[in-house]
Amino acid sequence: MADKAQLQEAIKTQGEVVRKLKSEKASKEQIDEEVAKLLQLKAQLGGDEGKHVFVLKTAKETLTGKYGEDSKLIYDLKDQGGELLSLRYDLTVPFARYLAMNKITNIKRYHIAKVYRRDNPAMTRGRYREFYQCDFDIAGQYDAMIPDAECLKIVYEILNELDLGDFRIKVNDRRILDGMFAVCGVPDEKFRTICSTVDKLDKMAWEDVKKEMVNEKGLSEDVADRIGEYVSMQGGQDLAERLLQDPKLSQNKQACAGLTDMKLLFSYLELFQVTDKVVFDLSLARGLDYYTGVIYEAILSQTIPALVSTPAEQNGADEAGVSVGSVAGGGRYDGLVGMFDPKGRKVPCVGVSIGIERIFSIMEQKAEASSEKVRTTETQVLVASAQKNLLEERLKLTNALWNEGIKAEVLYKKNPKLLSQLQHCEETGIPLVAILGEQELKDGVVKLRNVVSREEVDVPRADLVDEIKKRTL
Amino acid sequence: MADKAQLQEAIKTQGEVVRKLKSEKASKEQIDEEVAKLLQLKAQLGGDEGKHVFVLKTAKETLTGKYGEDSKLIYDLKDQGGELLSLRYDLTVPFARYLAMNKITNIKRYHIAKVYRRDNPAMTRGRYREFYQCDFDIAGQYDAMIPDAECLKIVYEILNELDLGDFRIKVNDRRILDGMFAVCGVPDEKFRTICSTVDKLDKMAWEDVKKEMVNEKGLSEDVADRIGEYVSMQGGQDLAERLLQDPKLSQNKQACAGLTDMKLLFSYLELFQVTDKVVFDLSLARGLDYYTGVIYEAILSQTIPALVSTPAEQNGADEAGVSVGSVAGGGRYDGLVGMFDPKGRKVPCVGVSIGIERIFSIMEQKAEASSEKVRTTETQVLVASAQKNLLEERLKLTNALWNEGIKAEVLYKKNPKLLSQLQHCEETGIPLVAILGEQELKDGVVKLRNVVSREEVDVPRADLVDEIKKRTL
Repeated sequence: MADKAQLQEAIKTQGEVVRKLKSEKASKEQIDEEVAKLLQLKAQLGGDEGKHVFVLKTAKETLTGKYGEDSKLIYDLKDQGGELLSLRYDLTVPFARYLAMNKITNIKRYHIAKVYRRDNPAMTRGRYREFYQCDFDIAGQYDAMIPDAECLKIVYEILNELDLGDFRIKVNDRRILDGMFAVCGVPDEKFRTICSTVDKLDKMAWEDVKKEMVNEKGLSEDVADRIGEYVSMQGGQDLAERLLQDPKLSQNKQACAGLTDMKLLFSYLELFQVTDKVVFDLSLARGLDYYTGVIYEAILSQTIPALVSTPAEQNGADEAGVSVGSVAGGGRYDGLVGMFDPKGRKVPCVGVSIGIERIFSIMEQKAEASSEKVRTTETQVLVASAQKNLLEERLKLTNALWNEGIKAEVLYKKNPKLLSQLQHCEETGIPLVAILGEQELKDGVVKLRNVVSREEVDVPRADLVDEIKKRTL
Repeated sequence: MADKAQLQEAIKTQGEVVRKLKSEKASKEQIDEEVAKLLQLKAQLGGDEGKHVFVLKTAKETLTGKYGEDSKLIYDLKDQGGELLSLRYDLTVPFARYLAMNKITNIKRYHIAKVYRRDNPAMTRGRYREFYQCDFDIAGQYDAMIPDAECLKIVYEILNELDLGDFRIKVNDRRILDGMFAVCGVPDEKFRTICSTVDKLDKMAWEDVKKEMVNEKGLSEDVADRIGEYVSMQGGQDLAERLLQDPKLSQNKQACAGLTDMKLLFSYLELFQVTDKVVFDLSLARGLDYYTGVIYEAILSQTIPALVSTPAEQNGADEAGVSVGSVAGGGRYDGLVGMFDPKGRKVPCVGVSIGIERIFSIMEQKAEASSEKVRTTETQVLVASAQKNLLEERLKLTNALWNEGIKAEVLYKKNPKLLSQLQHCEETGIPLVAILGEQELKDGVVKLRNVVSREEVDVPRADLVDEIKKRTL
């Protein structure tokens, strides 16, 4: 092993090489190559220290070359020391890095945390520069399509449970897309950029997508039209079977592998009883570079008029309102972990990202539109008094209820009016009031009042906890 | 209202003034003054847009002048546009800004999120540059000491529940400290810096603290000795009463207000049954600038030898090991919200910050030291098979259990060995295995196996869900 100081010096120098290339806007391949060297050096540092150096210092390098055309949305930062950093763009790349650095070869986990995009925010549609993502991923070498099917089942379950109206989950496979591009005559080096253009089909008409392919990306009309035929296809297991017989696609190894897996996936989805919402859709592309197999995206069918805020945002939406668009998406990324491992060891992964911020904004609007009040606390009971000078008794009772595991509140006032105590319950939705007075204290009871029905009963102090539990379960 | 474009231009110019002052290391007062002007201008912009400009763009200015001598630990950043930003240092200042910006005058909430400090990390003691904080705060104009007492009750409850061994909660009041400094003869302008020095008494001996006061902060020996007498005092309600009779302190208005509130606080703590762990300790100072009243800090009594990693970190610790130190702290900050309000409207606040990262590191070490295995999943049952070619049946049963709300897992293998399925349960602590075989399928039963006792029983398919629930409640 090399001398540590030498290694650290080498890492510093190599870091500068990478930074220089990036500032010069060198090619992705050239940058990737030098980043790989940097990672190798850091790995050599080894042990605890090497790990910390990695975890703490290579934020910017980590994100390079993972997001394709979306890279422009990465939030770059420079700290006091002039170190180049970035805020995390999603939870997938950090997850992959975590697995590689900690040599984890199988794990299933969810993660809810903030990510950052240097994008144009659209508050009314739940799009921000800083927002939460919720990811679920399964990493490990397993038999084909079983974890993939579980991811889709989970998306289905979540969207069903949240009661957001009808939805569809589009499924496709990066290998089918690549095979399709190949048999349509797209040059290899244009696969990724054409993929990005196809990805716009959910927001743009085919005619406009075609224009972009021909005018901006330099495809011939012929090639574009051939792509157009494929990307209009939708179906289920049957479509996968039919395409396996397609004279052109069946000649392409990649496409066949993807289609065979798609058939298998649908057989598992059948067992998981979710095929009523899942569609094999050849127009689904998803822009990110790191996907290697199955990809999917969930879309709510409902259009929400209240979500339309400005005429500019209405472009492409029908008269009835704007579609809220994708609320979940994901896919298989078998190569990403290997990019962080000094020896390139791969850990196959499949995952899904739930757009909780968008889902919350829809749920909030639904709640606002309905008459039902959304409670912001879980408080079961307010400890109140009708007379003056009972603060000590209120605090004592509150403390006793807390000690018994009851969610109790008390107004932070020496002598609050009964009316203001009752109003507090109505405003916050607290269902019960435990009222103390001289008489109640003398009798060893508490007056328990139902806020909605206004019905009151005297409950012996010893039975109070049980009574509150019974009434608020 | 001024023309919007003009205002935005003025904001830009003022922003540059602030930045220039800071780059020139101008005085805190001068910077604060210019920041205040900047905030005024931004507030004038008003409405939704003004708010967003504020929320998104003044991160760095927001943090200026709130943390006293700790300000050097703020993580400054510059984005692509050259905008000055900072990562949040704690959750209190952002909370105060949130209240001011949204004109919220009372709220009680907790918040668990990441904060950032440009500090020297000490991994083994749970100290990182990026770490979670967990804050609980009560904001609003209420009668004295009631919310303060609730905060202390919550700290008490949490530390009790987590079973971290014995602990103490030290309590003091910024006003008592200021009064004490005044009667000891500390010049007004040195209150804050002497406060920071007193704050080191938990890590340094009095002799060293005194040296710092005299040699570095320029106090006379006499003054330091007078402080030394007070800061050695500890007690409860009785101490507050005694100090109210102290010939010097009783002459100081600030000190009297603080001591009167301290008496009241202890009377509430008595009702909340927490006085066995709470100590009125005049040496507790807490460095942060924003506290205005009661302050407190919780310390675990236990010393944890495993937490000692390097000889350097052992300095100041006794032979038996190093104290894990403070695991919670907080206090009253009545002025902070007003600093963000264009009209200076105050919202009194009191809060507590739980050091969950430290607490987790202690709990993890305890778990490692004990023989009990910590489960990382809540899975109730693994769906398994003893024979080949039963993947479809396993997936079907797993799906049925999921649909019934059972936490079920299945290995992602076509034909896993029964042994590897059982081993998976032992490794992850899954308590039950539902085993399918040709015979079981024919009989309409599932073999339910208890992983620990190895006992097996055939359960009719219709009773399976109830049986699993009964055995895993």
